[in-house]
Amino acid sequence: MERLRDLGERAVIERLLEGQRSRALVGPGDDAAVLEWKGHVVACTDVVSMSGHAPAGMGLSDLGWMAAAVNFSDIAAMGARPEGLLTCMIAPPETGMDELSAVMSGVLECCREFDVELIGGDTKAGAELLVCGTALGSLEGPPLTRTGAMRGDLVADTGELGLAAAGFHAREMGTPFDEGDQALFRPWPRVREGIQIRDVASACMDTSDGLAVCLHRLRPPGEGIVVHSHQLPVHSLVNELSLAIGTPSLEMAMHFGGDYQLTFTLPPECSDLLDVIGATVIGEVVSTPGVTVDGRPLDDRGWEHFR
Amino acid sequence: MERLRDLGERAVIERLLEGQRSRALVGPGDDAAVLEWKGHVVACTDVVSMSGHAPAGMGLSDLGWMAAAVNFSDIAAMGARPEGLLTCMIAPPETGMDELSAVMSGVLECCREFDVELIGGDTKAGAELLVCGTALGSLEGPPLTRTGAMRGDLVADTGELGLAAAGFHAREMGTPFDEGDQALFRPWPRVREGIQIRDVASACMDTSDGLAVCLHRLRPPGEGIVVHSHQLPVHSLVNELSLAIGTPSLEMAMHFGGDYQLTFTLPPECSDLLDVIGATVIGEVVSTPGVTVDGRPLDDRGWEHFR
Repeated sequence: MERLRDLGERAVIERLLEGQRSRALVGPGDDAAVLEWKGHVVACTDVVSMSGHAPAGMGLSDLGWMAAAVNFSDIAAMGARPEGLLTCMIAPPETGMDELSAVMSGVLECCREFDVELIGGDTKAGAELLVCGTALGSLEGPPLTRTGAMRGDLVADTGELGLAAAGFHAREMGTPFDEGDQALFRPWPRVREGIQIRDVASACMDTSDGLAVCLHRLRPPGEGIVVHSHQLPVHSLVNELSLAIGTPSLEMAMHFGGDYQLTFTLPPECSDLLDVIGATVIGEVVSTPGVTVDGRPLDDRGWEHFR
Repeated sequence: MERLRDLGERAVIERLLEGQRSRALVGPGDDAAVLEWKGHVVACTDVVSMSGHAPAGMGLSDLGWMAAAVNFSDIAAMGARPEGLLTCMIAPPETGMDELSAVMSGVLECCREFDVELIGGDTKAGAELLVCGTALGSLEGPPLTRTGAMRGDLVADTGELGLAAAGFHAREMGTPFDEGDQALFRPWPRVREGIQIRDVASACMDTSDGLAVCLHRLRPPGEGIVVHSHQLPVHSLVNELSLAIGTPSLEMAMHFGGDYQLTFTLPPECSDLLDVIGATVIGEVVSTPGVTVDGRPLDDRGWEHFR
């Protein structure tokens, strides 16, 4: 097997870019990439690693997919369209070239699905395998930020919650299931939905750290959000697993994170849009401060690194 | 001492951003940053680590400076102006908050020097301290790429070569000197010069991997570059050190890397610019294929990761 150590950085980069064509004005291979641009630039960066993000069963191409998808999700949460991706890959010198190529295949697969150009990157030696992605998105209107929710707005979510948590716990128990694996290993960023809600939503955030964190961030200062647990779009398999392992569905949906949906607020008169994009009302913005679920305060607790 | 493990990701990010103000339309703290934009977008990413980039004596704030500077240098090599920086910081959970803050202080210092906005980032747990920087640059005219040199063009360089190598070797010998440390720990990206040469230069690249790699990349297919070693702007301290350690100056200037100058080609009738920006002619583009120094072929060998 060819190892990165034997090939050296330049040959590694050549292999990774083999057969890639770029629509960019200047693509990978020069000092920097150059893109024609219109409107605002939206930018975000997020790193994924096998140690920090890979439950048992996660493959190298899944890691690559994640590195792209988590960034596209952040771009989507601004109501923007992802256009370009840069990836910094760090790997031990003993890593096989085929392993790094597998990571890259996942990156490229996600780029293809969302019509995003891989515009550049860097490849360096390090203690563990890490992929740091940076996405650039375009936005012609005003950005959709975390601030802007108003009293009386509905709170909605683009998809089913708790599946990543259920997938993780099911794996731990040795009883993985397809929907859980899909949510854990191949999250689908809500790019289409982000663009669809942009002109209507008053605030938005992605649920990567869990719904609870979103609700606390989206809540306007001095006001509150009430959520009714029966309205939460929790997948039936999450409820089934919940009974089997004794962890409440609500815990999985609220605090585990990893779901990569969009949680957003919008004026009630715009609620017709929700059916169109397949989103669900989960609560509303009220005058009583704090975030409650079925009348009980909800902890501002979610996925946190370093802990 | 407060450790990242005790604080958790959200508190760590809050501390890192304390007192920072942003000119961006949306700065750090939302899902992504948003910038007003005009012209092309130029983007690059580069990761630095204590294990890969830190000779003895390098401080944490130097690592932060490097993460910004190496990216600004790539932006400069395209003739663009760096406008925004994103930094992904990876650190072991046992890392002290003050250590991460020291890294960030170096990042911010470099941003201030070059009037670049820190627009976003990510902070995650990992096996070793790494900073992955992504810079965005603006460019109103056409980009200055590595291709475009023509037979008859002069080859020039913006600054003294071999200082990073000399600094490294001097450190190894226990006899560090200021100019060497400066080149090693606080490289100064040639942002001003990149913009000044943009409309005149035919091709450009930064010398981060060594001058030899640049010359081989800038050489037009089927043609050559001749360099005269007496024309190379090698610092007198590099020559002194060369005698002391028995490593030729040419080796340090050509193959060690780490100098972060710009090497570029330009038509001879534009050579007046060189005095204005303080650049030196080091050779010319000729019809005989290959790269030679004083008539001898020059190896296409430079700094390479993984080896």
